Amino acid sequence: MQRYFVEKHVDNKIEICGEDARHIVKVMRMTSGDKVLCCTKEGKTALSMITEIANDCVLLEVEEWQEEEKELPVSVTIANGLPKGDKLELVIQKGTELGAAEFIPFIAARSIVKWDSKKASKKVERFKKIAKEAAEQSHRTVVPSVVEPCSLNKLIEVSETYTHKIVAYEEEAKRGEKANFASILSRLQKGDSIIIVVGPEGGLTEEEVEKLRQANFVPCSFGPRILRTETAPFYALSAVSYETELMR
Amino acid sequence: MQRYFVEKHVDNKIEICGEDARHIVKVMRMTSGDKVLCCTKEGKTALSMITEIANDCVLLEVEEWQEEEKELPVSVTIANGLPKGDKLELVIQKGTELGAAEFIPFIAARSIVKWDSKKASKKVERFKKIAKEAAEQSHRTVVPSVVEPCSLNKLIEVSETYTHKIVAYEEEAKRGEKANFASILSRLQKGDSIIIVVGPEGGLTEEEVEKLRQANFVPCSFGPRILRTETAPFYALSAVSYETELMR
Repeated sequence: MQRYFVEKHVDNKIEICGEDARHIVKVMRMTSGDKVLCCTKEGKTALSMITEIANDCVLLEVEEWQEEEKELPVSVTIANGLPKGDKLELVIQKGTELGAAEFIPFIAARSIVKWDSKKASKKVERFKKIAKEAAEQSHRTVVPSVVEPCSLNKLIEVSETYTHKIVAYEEEAKRGEKANFASILSRLQKGDSIIIVVGPEGGLTEEEVEKLRQANFVPCSFGPRILRTETAPFYALSAVSYETELMR
Repeated sequence: MQRYFVEKHVDNKIEICGEDARHIVKVMRMTSGDKVLCCTKEGKTALSMITEIANDCVLLEVEEWQEEEKELPVSVTIANGLPKGDKLELVIQKGTELGAAEFIPFIAARSIVKWDSKKASKKVERFKKIAKEAAEQSHRTVVPSVVEPCSLNKLIEVSETYTHKIVAYEEEAKRGEKANFASILSRLQKGDSIIIVVGPEGGLTEEEVEKLRQANFVPCSFGPRILRTETAPFYALSAVSYETELMR
């Protein structure tokens, strides 16, 4: 069944306006009496019936609040060093499917692309749309947040509130380090938050890794193969899901 | 250090011809005395020095055979129902980075694309190139194989030689099944082979799943979220690596 993330609901009355309303009417060709799933800002899901289609809005009434456990038991933030091309779009689309809670791009020393503030806000709008569509498609109940790129210092400042801090560091993979990541994941508890920093193409510099180390980030390898900047988040998220959702 | 997969080596003498030779000479601008890593067909890696550049070939001498453990301890085959567009390219590139041994596309009931034999062989050539480049980039010692698309019946026939057979089935995810995949992975032993079947867009039909069940494929969910056809292999490969390379 088609699902939509809704902005507003008052008790059992839901209003969907704008692009999603057009999708319901023009693309899905739904009318009064048809049903969709509505996910609220609080992460709840309601089987809802269309009661009225008016102007640019669709009005619905909740038939049944559903118990769904679609979200990872821990909150995972992916912080990618700004990569080239459309790699961040791929990270956000697939990362959303794989359960990420938040994406924070940061300007790494080896990031080649430059985003001025106009470009950044346009890009972030696009990323938010990708996250929303991927969340709908993968049956999530929450849309992950995407913020504008920040500096490494700002990222470190923000990281203070997280339960676990990880930096993916390929030198660790080359050295054969393999215990850190599994050790952290095995200690995860429901409600924990993890931030995972991944370098851009060319990786993080030693200075950046040192700075992160000093801020209590643990350098981890994701196996002995060298993963690209856009592939490392898939590994991390899949491993978190496997450890916390399938193994336990 | 740059690495190349080599076809021929006699004892400590290696010859690289064709495109890779051009890459060494024209792109990397290397000359006699420069060093590269050569990966042989047997999965061994040699630190090698260029001794001669002749016509379209580069001759090298092995300086040191290296002990590298870059390959998953189990052999994972990804069998995707033929998807649309360039999704298979993404599966092969990222799947190679994540350690897959083999890719077998198959023609699923809901596969929309049709490949005639001319198109298929051209596509597979391109896929092999993608696999080779991703293997070099991720420091693997073996290039995964890619074969032309086959039927589901043929796939089932081929699957008889595998130690473990899995079918990713989103209905299992919706039903909340979560034990099967972790149970199989926890029993994996070095040298085992696993084949993982993933449907195309729209998923496998019930008939296809039933056929696979009868051939002893175990239906597994990869967590409670619905993953796209190209994302499921990333989850599966990451979980296999996490279980067999990081946790143990």
